[in-house]
Amino acid sequence: MSVVACIGAGNVGRAWAVVFARAGHSVRLYDANPAEIRDRALPLAATLLGDLARAGVLTETPDEVLARISPAASLAEAAAEAGWIQESVREDLSLKRAVLTEIAAAAAPEAIIASSTSAIRGSEFMTAIAGPGRALVAHPVNPPALIPLVELCATPLTAPETLAEARRFMTALGMRPITVNREIDGFILNRLQYTLVAEALHLVGEGYCSAEDIDAVVTQGLALRWASIGPFEVAHLNATEGFMGFVRQLGPMMRRMGADARTDYDWSEALAQDIHDAIARRMPVERIGELQAWRDRRILATRAMQATDLPPVADAEEGHRK
Amino acid sequence: MSVVACIGAGNVGRAWAVVFARAGHSVRLYDANPAEIRDRALPLAATLLGDLARAGVLTETPDEVLARISPAASLAEAAAEAGWIQESVREDLSLKRAVLTEIAAAAAPEAIIASSTSAIRGSEFMTAIAGPGRALVAHPVNPPALIPLVELCATPLTAPETLAEARRFMTALGMRPITVNREIDGFILNRLQYTLVAEALHLVGEGYCSAEDIDAVVTQGLALRWASIGPFEVAHLNATEGFMGFVRQLGPMMRRMGADARTDYDWSEALAQDIHDAIARRMPVERIGELQAWRDRRILATRAMQATDLPPVADAEEGHRK
Repeated sequence: MSVVACIGAGNVGRAWAVVFARAGHSVRLYDANPAEIRDRALPLAATLLGDLARAGVLTETPDEVLARISPAASLAEAAAEAGWIQESVREDLSLKRAVLTEIAAAAAPEAIIASSTSAIRGSEFMTAIAGPGRALVAHPVNPPALIPLVELCATPLTAPETLAEARRFMTALGMRPITVNREIDGFILNRLQYTLVAEALHLVGEGYCSAEDIDAVVTQGLALRWASIGPFEVAHLNATEGFMGFVRQLGPMMRRMGADARTDYDWSEALAQDIHDAIARRMPVERIGELQAWRDRRILATRAMQATDLPPVADAEEGHRK
Repeated sequence: MSVVACIGAGNVGRAWAVVFARAGHSVRLYDANPAEIRDRALPLAATLLGDLARAGVLTETPDEVLARISPAASLAEAAAEAGWIQESVREDLSLKRAVLTEIAAAAAPEAIIASSTSAIRGSEFMTAIAGPGRALVAHPVNPPALIPLVELCATPLTAPETLAEARRFMTALGMRPITVNREIDGFILNRLQYTLVAEALHLVGEGYCSAEDIDAVVTQGLALRWASIGPFEVAHLNATEGFMGFVRQLGPMMRRMGADARTDYDWSEALAQDIHDAIARRMPVERIGELQAWRDRRILATRAMQATDLPPVADAEEGHRK
């Protein structure tokens, strides 16, 4: 197994370190603040690995995995050794530019440089570096050690073989890479998520329903299907003739709902506060840590559910997915 | 237990019959085509009950439940006996008007008349009937015997006590009612669903990603959280200070994504056909029946997952939900 560097040891960088280490890689973890690694990242990685072991999804002991994660004394030292360098610093354009320039100067020419950026496009900070062909976005989902999806997005200068190698590497890690073919704000996951949230804010803001009922519509309605089949597949299985049969029957309703959505709804701080207060009655802010741990157990339980009773055409699916 | 009438014995009406019967009610099932009941609805209800029994979610044998479902010779006969009448005929305005008028003429004054309408507002066919105060929409989610969510929506003439009684009745059935406070096209669930689908069509149509990757973003990303926490709760648990903390940090991104969404995207039949072809490679149309059975088992497995490891603040939640 090879050496992977994680630059930035916050929530995202720390989770990436666990993802790489549990797949057998040696991880060099660097943070501008060394105390962040010693006092937070390593202890929290140990806790996370304990949770994963309890959920039965580790093939080794937490200590064996943890032993493969070591702090690096400098960014250059971490980057120089690595075949894959994952940048997860704060979402700040000038910081990302400086860090990527430094990584590119230290990294081997054949190393891949990936950024966890969420809200900033890769082309804003990855194209002016040395060797931009080896750099791309690999955007994970919180919490990244539990959710397999990762969005790969090339910049206009990324080499095709970098993208192909990133897909192979992520798949080997047990992640599920998708490819964003062309840069777009928010990539795919956050666009779908916040488009739905925007319409939800419109519906609550205009008094059509409560915030609690929005959450119930998703957990007790939509997600009971979406945990196994995506939105297009739902339509495909809702009509005897598949997706086109559904479109022939309900296409006009689909178009009307889309045209009618108010995703540009100008929601107020007061509305956000009302929603906060409603959720906080059920999920008090002072118990968020405990609730996050519960959420994480539930994510693992949902993945365990997905791993049993595979779709009857799973072989065809795997073949198609390559 | 009381008598419930199901008017219309297609997919939705048949599933409702199972929901009512398994909760102990005597169900009178009526369809304009008696063969529909004898040849399809009753055999398929028996199959469904067998599946529920195998999943361990029935407290009786399938035959005991099935024995409480009996065909009615006429709509008037079914409606006259019932305390709750559930209309699930085709989505056709003039048909719904005629059927609701007939139900209202036969029903007891204190009976509740509920419509499963999805695409037509209740006020278009429920306000001109005798006793419109007892009529409202109770819109289920496919497949209704497996998914607990039901959307209750009053017309401007529905009595408040009808809505309150409908909430109690649905909750006692094991359903999860939400209240749509004011009529709106698509109610809540389909608006959220098709707003997301509209943006997904935009992203695939403009070449940003494949249809398969859209489905993966949902099943391997968003739904791993949404199966346990709704979209507002996700934000609440993604920030140490809860929903308001999230909004303070990522509100600008939320607004940008909403403003940027293209839910009015004018997708073509050709795009829909491409999506159909891509899904059909993994999920062949001739195997949809088998795939639906798999989907249904997965929905039950997801609900079983939700029933274990309850949220640490479940008591507060129950108290809040009343």
